[in-house]
Amino acid sequence: FTVAPVQPMQSTQLFAEYEPLEGESKINLKIDLDSPKVATMDDIEKGKKVYCRCWLSGTFPLCDGTHVKHNDATGDNVGPLIVSVKKD
Amino acid sequence: FTVAPVQPMQSTQLFAEYEPLEGESKINLKIDLDSPKVATMDDIEKGKKVYCRCWLSGTFPLCDGTHVKHNDATGDNVGPLIVSVKKD
Repeated sequence: FTVAPVQPMQSTQLFAEYEPLEGESKINLKIDLDSPKVATMDDIEKGKKVYCRCWLSGTFPLCDGTHVKHNDATGDNVGPLIVSVKKD
Repeated sequence: FTVAPVQPMQSTQLFAEYEPLEGESKINLKIDLDSPKVATMDDIEKGKKVYCRCWLSGTFPLCDGTHVKHNDATGDNVGPLIVSVKKD
């Protein structure tokens, strides 16, 4: 018998079973829109850093408080990520 | 002359001039929806951590790759935040 060559799965096929949530739409409307994926690498040495998770900050990847205005205007409840270096 | 008592500004007044972007809507459709604001505090001791910024991860606040499915389904380009502790 012959084995059909395995087709590399299209990324859409790979996630064929992914069901978007109701109302799920683009989150990033502002930051590096021509980049295929905006992943950020950042170092932290001591103390803490406050990172944006609303994709609207003027100081992205850091938070500048715009999420408060966004939440107010849309009824959302997003807030920042605060990362602290744990002293050993 | 009499000075009118200063009214504490309503948060909506405070941001009266905030203009939502076109298509700006709720980002968080899944995580702690009954919380007024989902801010996360996290410690990092050494190495790195990969944090979710698409509000869809099953291991929130950490990334589980769901952003790939979200981007595929919506044409978005969001990606995680990778924080590394810098050795001095």
